[in-house]
Amino acid sequence: RPEFALELGQKAMLVTGHSSMRRAGVLDRVVGDLKNNGVDTLVFDKVVPNPRASTMDEGARMARQEGIELVIGLGGGSAMDTAKGIVLASTGTKPIWDYIGTDIKVSGPLLPLILVPTMAATGSEANGGASITKRETREKAYIFTPYMFPKVSIIDPELTLTVPKKQTATGGVDIFCHAVEGYITTQEPSMVNDGIIEAVLRTVVELLPKVLDKLDDIGMRTELSWASTIACSQLIALGGGYGPRTCHSISNFLGGYYDVAHGDCLAAILPVWMRYTLPVRAERFHALG
Amino acid sequence: RPEFALELGQKAMLVTGHSSMRRAGVLDRVVGDLKNNGVDTLVFDKVVPNPRASTMDEGARMARQEGIELVIGLGGGSAMDTAKGIVLASTGTKPIWDYIGTDIKVSGPLLPLILVPTMAATGSEANGGASITKRETREKAYIFTPYMFPKVSIIDPELTLTVPKKQTATGGVDIFCHAVEGYITTQEPSMVNDGIIEAVLRTVVELLPKVLDKLDDIGMRTELSWASTIACSQLIALGGGYGPRTCHSISNFLGGYYDVAHGDCLAAILPVWMRYTLPVRAERFHALG
Repeated sequence: RPEFALELGQKAMLVTGHSSMRRAGVLDRVVGDLKNNGVDTLVFDKVVPNPRASTMDEGARMARQEGIELVIGLGGGSAMDTAKGIVLASTGTKPIWDYIGTDIKVSGPLLPLILVPTMAATGSEANGGASITKRETREKAYIFTPYMFPKVSIIDPELTLTVPKKQTATGGVDIFCHAVEGYITTQEPSMVNDGIIEAVLRTVVELLPKVLDKLDDIGMRTELSWASTIACSQLIALGGGYGPRTCHSISNFLGGYYDVAHGDCLAAILPVWMRYTLPVRAERFHALG
Repeated sequence: RPEFALELGQKAMLVTGHSSMRRAGVLDRVVGDLKNNGVDTLVFDKVVPNPRASTMDEGARMARQEGIELVIGLGGGSAMDTAKGIVLASTGTKPIWDYIGTDIKVSGPLLPLILVPTMAATGSEANGGASITKRETREKAYIFTPYMFPKVSIIDPELTLTVPKKQTATGGVDIFCHAVEGYITTQEPSMVNDGIIEAVLRTVVELLPKVLDKLDDIGMRTELSWASTIACSQLIALGGGYGPRTCHSISNFLGGYYDVAHGDCLAAILPVWMRYTLPVRAERFHALG
């Protein structure tokens, strides 16, 4: 890990949340490793679920003021997305919310980004997208741009060993939704791509109940980490064989309005969506088996 | 296509074979497109099956002399591998054969590489490896280095529509071998990775017989192209769940000694290898179903 970092910058901002903080071992080890390899680290630990536009703006301002050369996101989807938002917003002086819905252009240099997921869930480490919530107006949006694509992502399933039961479960639901939504809604299925998505779904369905009984099993945690990363990479939409993510879109409204955690939203939406979608997409449910 | 090229260089060497030449439409179109976009092209059409070290050295010399800024490999595995060898050898003055077996270092700048496969077979477009044959000593070797990784690969299944029946069949065998060899020999199978490999194998097994009866079916050709590209990318060995490629290793000796085409070698080796391997790897054959 530290070797990658030094090539990218000597002054890093480490973006993480309070709950990651509590897993003190990990944070201390990362900061220590970076220091031993010549990288100074500023810890920015203000990340919350449904990550806030205001947090990203604060981080971006600090990154500019402190002359940060490298941004590292360590944690779940919220930490990674906040790190992405900081990278994008720190290229200029306008707030992150202003980038939504526009043809995204940056006016200044882009800080390199390293992402280190500590949960198998959002797969944010494998794409250039981020969720952003504006608490004042109870809105939640999603932006996507190659500017927020990580330079390096370090997927280490050992970091997921201490994720508690409930977050492990909702993380699994998130992975399942990433894979199943487009599978069901696609208008142009592809044989190779169907097989890849089915591999992810089969892994979650078979392993999730087992891992909940044995949270420290590194083998199963590793499989879930791979499933998570693939489910949110471009692989899942190979050749266009992937439709819209309906549950995720609905979830943005719930998350924005009620500030409910992403995985909880999805767990509530998924069964209802399946019943609603079944009659019109019966052949895709059938293909799923 | 041409847009990518101009960003990478204004003077391109297009590496291809005589048989690709004969598909005059494609070559003329590529050269024309490049010209219209401000890229001058030197056509180097000396590629042969079991691509020669001598061809790569000749191309590398020419690239240096002519001030080439960009290398494009257009064709099957031999054309792509020759293009890769030219990129590597053109960084210095030593022959390509001298890079084999050493810790590969380059002494000069690296030309950017674009690969355009015209067959679904070797998957060379998705990795940094190349086969090299030394006819004088009847040796064939394989080298692998990030220096030969393409900047851009353009996988356009339309280019595969005119591949004749026999090459389509042996290309399918090549894809099948890339996927099945490591699947059978791995000591540490992974659930997600098994699923991805099985998706590739299922696609070849189901579609290859059908495409041989209907060579101009773009849907099936597209699926085979995806299967080919994935089967030779790092995806197929996700998390280490992939063993050695025994058939491919044996095939190098046959190809080097008798100059038999790669796909033909594999078609001859595969059934014998399967019978030989079955007793010791029965559980993996069983997993394959």
